[in-house]
Amino acid sequence: MREFKKLTPYREALSILLNDLTEIADVEEVSLDDALGRVLAEDVVSPIDSPPFDRAAVDGYGLRAEDTFQAREYSPVKIKVIDEIAAGEESRAKVEPGTAVKLLTGAKIPEGANAVLMQEMAERKGNIIRVLRPVAPGQNVAMKGEDVRKGEVVLRKGQILRPQDLAILKSLGFRTVRVKRKPRVGIIITGSELIEEFDEEALMHGRIIDSNSVMLKGLVKQYFGEPRFYGVLPDDEKKIGEVIRKAREENDLVLVTGGSAFGDMDFAHRFVNLLFHGTTIKPGRPIGYGERTFVMSGYPAAVFTQFHLYVKHALAKLVGARDYEVKVRAKLTERVPSQLGRYEFVKVRYENGTAKPIRKKGSGIISALVESNGYIVVPEDSEGYLEGESVEVVLY
Amino acid sequence: MREFKKLTPYREALSILLNDLTEIADVEEVSLDDALGRVLAEDVVSPIDSPPFDRAAVDGYGLRAEDTFQAREYSPVKIKVIDEIAAGEESRAKVEPGTAVKLLTGAKIPEGANAVLMQEMAERKGNIIRVLRPVAPGQNVAMKGEDVRKGEVVLRKGQILRPQDLAILKSLGFRTVRVKRKPRVGIIITGSELIEEFDEEALMHGRIIDSNSVMLKGLVKQYFGEPRFYGVLPDDEKKIGEVIRKAREENDLVLVTGGSAFGDMDFAHRFVNLLFHGTTIKPGRPIGYGERTFVMSGYPAAVFTQFHLYVKHALAKLVGARDYEVKVRAKLTERVPSQLGRYEFVKVRYENGTAKPIRKKGSGIISALVESNGYIVVPEDSEGYLEGESVEVVLY
Repeated sequence: MREFKKLTPYREALSILLNDLTEIADVEEVSLDDALGRVLAEDVVSPIDSPPFDRAAVDGYGLRAEDTFQAREYSPVKIKVIDEIAAGEESRAKVEPGTAVKLLTGAKIPEGANAVLMQEMAERKGNIIRVLRPVAPGQNVAMKGEDVRKGEVVLRKGQILRPQDLAILKSLGFRTVRVKRKPRVGIIITGSELIEEFDEEALMHGRIIDSNSVMLKGLVKQYFGEPRFYGVLPDDEKKIGEVIRKAREENDLVLVTGGSAFGDMDFAHRFVNLLFHGTTIKPGRPIGYGERTFVMSGYPAAVFTQFHLYVKHALAKLVGARDYEVKVRAKLTERVPSQLGRYEFVKVRYENGTAKPIRKKGSGIISALVESNGYIVVPEDSEGYLEGESVEVVLY
Repeated sequence: MREFKKLTPYREALSILLNDLTEIADVEEVSLDDALGRVLAEDVVSPIDSPPFDRAAVDGYGLRAEDTFQAREYSPVKIKVIDEIAAGEESRAKVEPGTAVKLLTGAKIPEGANAVLMQEMAERKGNIIRVLRPVAPGQNVAMKGEDVRKGEVVLRKGQILRPQDLAILKSLGFRTVRVKRKPRVGIIITGSELIEEFDEEALMHGRIIDSNSVMLKGLVKQYFGEPRFYGVLPDDEKKIGEVIRKAREENDLVLVTGGSAFGDMDFAHRFVNLLFHGTTIKPGRPIGYGERTFVMSGYPAAVFTQFHLYVKHALAKLVGARDYEVKVRAKLTERVPSQLGRYEFVKVRYENGTAKPIRKKGSGIISALVESNGYIVVPEDSEGYLEGESVEVVLY
């Protein structure tokens, strides 16, 4: 068997990859209802102050704080209510000494007033309220621009839009938002041993059901992309070459599984000018990349690792996404030994501050992927971690 | 102002809510490609062993381990290769003492063999290999059922399906999966002060752009539901009553914002037999629930809190979802004081093991929702946390 002469260190390969890719320029303007999970294409600057004026933060009485300074429970101050407004309305009354306007939360503070007395702090009879305690200037007033100031950046380019981000956009008057076009990702599965449907007879004679296609489609969707499936191809050099060329023309990125090693039937890498081939990651070492094309393993656990260590970051680069990984700190429930020289991907089950390594041998093992909910890495220069050691877990 | 006579403690209200709701019985059978993020309706039991037979875990030679026990680099053992197979094929040869079959990874171990010698550990000339080191019985063999055993539960009811879950289903021969129907959630926004589009003039006179609708639609989608929007309604008692009745007939759950307090214009709670109204949560105290209907605040930050503390759990109950919250432990970067008797929802920015409280006064404040990426809670019997204290953060 030919082998990799030299494995490219994980981080070196990653920077070769990221340097080779260019952020997608295409921007789509979508309605806020369709923007959940999309990636913001540019900074959003607020066109207005929010609130647009000083407003009542509670239901109560807009008045001059000075008028209440002498108020005590045993010696209330009497103030005259000169106007009363409904939600969304505005009082045109001017608050003079000794007067107040009844306001609902959110209402504009009327001219002359500088504070709001909470409704339950006043005793009202007819149009007179008795104030029992003093109110400070500015009390219960939401100041103009207190939430967001005009011209302030409220959301930054690369934000993956969440429900609350859509809410702030809406509240500032936006009806649409400019997001990056989703990267189109061609998926090609190769291997004559693969079948697409359950066939017990075929399985008992060594065939394997392809599961990489459905997994990669899901992963691509999870990380901002639009998957496009080119089928499961037999080990036919000519056919594989044709489909790779076609997929490359039609997509921003192409993922080819199978054919990344140097077996006699591993063709895929022959159609790509690879910038690296074979890196220090474990599992998944035989990964190759060049010309916007990943040549990946055939084994699901290796493909999963290659996706998280390389493809995910490539997709994030294409759309300029920020904060696309959830990283938490956890204490290891047991020792994780690792081989020097390998950048090891160790699946873990994260729960309540602890990480339990889920290690099963064999890169075909899918059950470990299912049991785990995140991973830790052990870099090339480390022999692993001790039980109880604090590690960084990336959740998935 | 009328006020709540008694606030129901947070957890008591939550159990009233969850006891009142019944898990949706409807199940949909969807293709694996459409199942990402859906909630599994029942346990999935493997119909097969995986691998279905003992198979090669590496490319190499299937042989009898015993034949290699004497092998040394200075005194190699010679073994005759009697068959050679391609991917997905099966050798019918019987491995007798002194013979081997060349196998690719994944191939069935031929009769008579009990180990696989890695290809690079053998020197081959014609049909003879020279074995330089001994191989142990079982070495480089993936045993039948080692990944998944026939009859084993591979995924449990309530699992939110991830790409790797779809992969295991596919690999075990499934083409479809039974998931819960998405809960249909009617969303009704009330408030005469609300406008749906930007109008500077109207804003300057006290109107407010509704942002709860887009936020709630997003939150409902995030937590397994299908949002159905019934519009922004003015404070018209008759109209609000009609729409609530209609929405309740057409949905599993109804969310009404505005009208949960006791202002003169707060009608919504009159149309619902509430099981609780007013709980100890802060912000968002005036929440009410009954007859599959939530009567919620009008202020976005209060609505967001009410959603996370109540509605999210209601949706999870409706579909029987497990593990729908990501909880991490973090050290507080500063003190969080809290009022006794309140179940306080404190937004935080979680980063690298620390949680920074994002506190801005005012329940209308959306910018704090945008800055934060999770929350902590301070229960009723606590006065808060100290700087540096370890707390549980729920990420969003």
